[in-house]
Amino acid sequence: MTYELYYWPTIQGRGEFVRLALEQASVPYADVARSPARSGGMPAMFRFLDGEKVAHPPFAPPFLRVGRRLIGQTANILQFIGARHGLAPAAEADRLWTNQLQLTIADFVQEVHDTHHPIASSLYYEDQKREARRRAEEFRRQRAPKFLGYFERILDTKPGSTPHLVGSRLSYADLSLFQVVEGMRYAFPKASARLERGLPRIVALHDKVAGLPRIAAYLASDRRIAFNEEGIFRRYKELDG
Amino acid sequence: MTYELYYWPTIQGRGEFVRLALEQASVPYADVARSPARSGGMPAMFRFLDGEKVAHPPFAPPFLRVGRRLIGQTANILQFIGARHGLAPAAEADRLWTNQLQLTIADFVQEVHDTHHPIASSLYYEDQKREARRRAEEFRRQRAPKFLGYFERILDTKPGSTPHLVGSRLSYADLSLFQVVEGMRYAFPKASARLERGLPRIVALHDKVAGLPRIAAYLASDRRIAFNEEGIFRRYKELDG
Repeated sequence: MTYELYYWPTIQGRGEFVRLALEQASVPYADVARSPARSGGMPAMFRFLDGEKVAHPPFAPPFLRVGRRLIGQTANILQFIGARHGLAPAAEADRLWTNQLQLTIADFVQEVHDTHHPIASSLYYEDQKREARRRAEEFRRQRAPKFLGYFERILDTKPGSTPHLVGSRLSYADLSLFQVVEGMRYAFPKASARLERGLPRIVALHDKVAGLPRIAAYLASDRRIAFNEEGIFRRYKELDG
Repeated sequence: MTYELYYWPTIQGRGEFVRLALEQASVPYADVARSPARSGGMPAMFRFLDGEKVAHPPFAPPFLRVGRRLIGQTANILQFIGARHGLAPAAEADRLWTNQLQLTIADFVQEVHDTHHPIASSLYYEDQKREARRRAEEFRRQRAPKFLGYFERILDTKPGSTPHLVGSRLSYADLSLFQVVEGMRYAFPKASARLERGLPRIVALHDKVAGLPRIAAYLASDRRIAFNEEGIFRRYKELDG
């Protein structure tokens, strides 16, 4: 069965966490909103978002269509993929722990988003630039070190040199942490370089994920959208430092 | 086994979503950080947050201790309680849907929080009052109607007059939506009264939950902390309207 991913077609955004998992799991999927408009495109996405007769409508993209099922919310989609395609441990306690880490990553991603949109998603960056500068400063000084330091500490408690967040095997949480590092390097190159000096385990995990054959192939393909200033991780010089 | 809940002792906050589920499930639990300092209090909470030797440390409260296990992230804790204590459906697809709704509620709660803290949680409200006013206006005009309208629509597609979000039985998502209504009434009495005119199904769900014997008993007890201006839902006259 080919899964259908629905997400904004021009950005990595939250959809990227799902794409990375689908790619690593080698699941056949269509990135519907990026497909030609006849069968896909944005109209296909909005049919599910606005549809009156949709049984389990998602509040927002990304969502995944699996047969007749719709599954929304990034961490929820990853739970589904993880359980079904070997990207999460089998035991309930370990699955909850993986989910807990993913939700903490989701909180961090929200804070990254809010560095450039502290007032409202519906306003342009230019209309909240002053507030963004203030929020980004707090983010760089307090939030980013706190979140990333937390994940470094998790990795640091692992025996030996296992570069995985959960147990000794790859999980979707590892893929997501890889994406966070990628995003931070793009959006905050200066702050990121400074922070990474204290995050050797996270960098090792990042490098390990980047070298996975399927991930490497994906990153080199045109399925990987480049970072840009419409996504969550945006490079605005004035917000870095 | 008595569960141990760890959360800031003076506010409802995110811990309240867990408390409501524990109360309705009739699970014996200790609210540790609210207990006398000898065995509990804040030091007990920080032992787990800061502990070097904690296997699965939570990033932040609330977290639940079940035997030797620690479970963090509100939606994750609720998944655990829901599955184990009959507050979520048994089928995997329905459980994911319940989780999806809860994550959407969590997103809304974060946006409520950011109405009074748009710049940084580490700063006082007084230091971001101007930004808060702007953000709260966007929240009242766009975000609150969008989120609450979404849940109203979900309820509206249910057959008959079932006032439940998932299937025809009570789930933890219903308890959380009840809490959202309570919080909105407290924090934004004017905006809330206006919004509720268009949300009859949500109000019916709220009333149904409020009338559940265990919830009613809990709300009348001193275990329920009153809303106040340290929590997520805060009443600042200048942010309502």
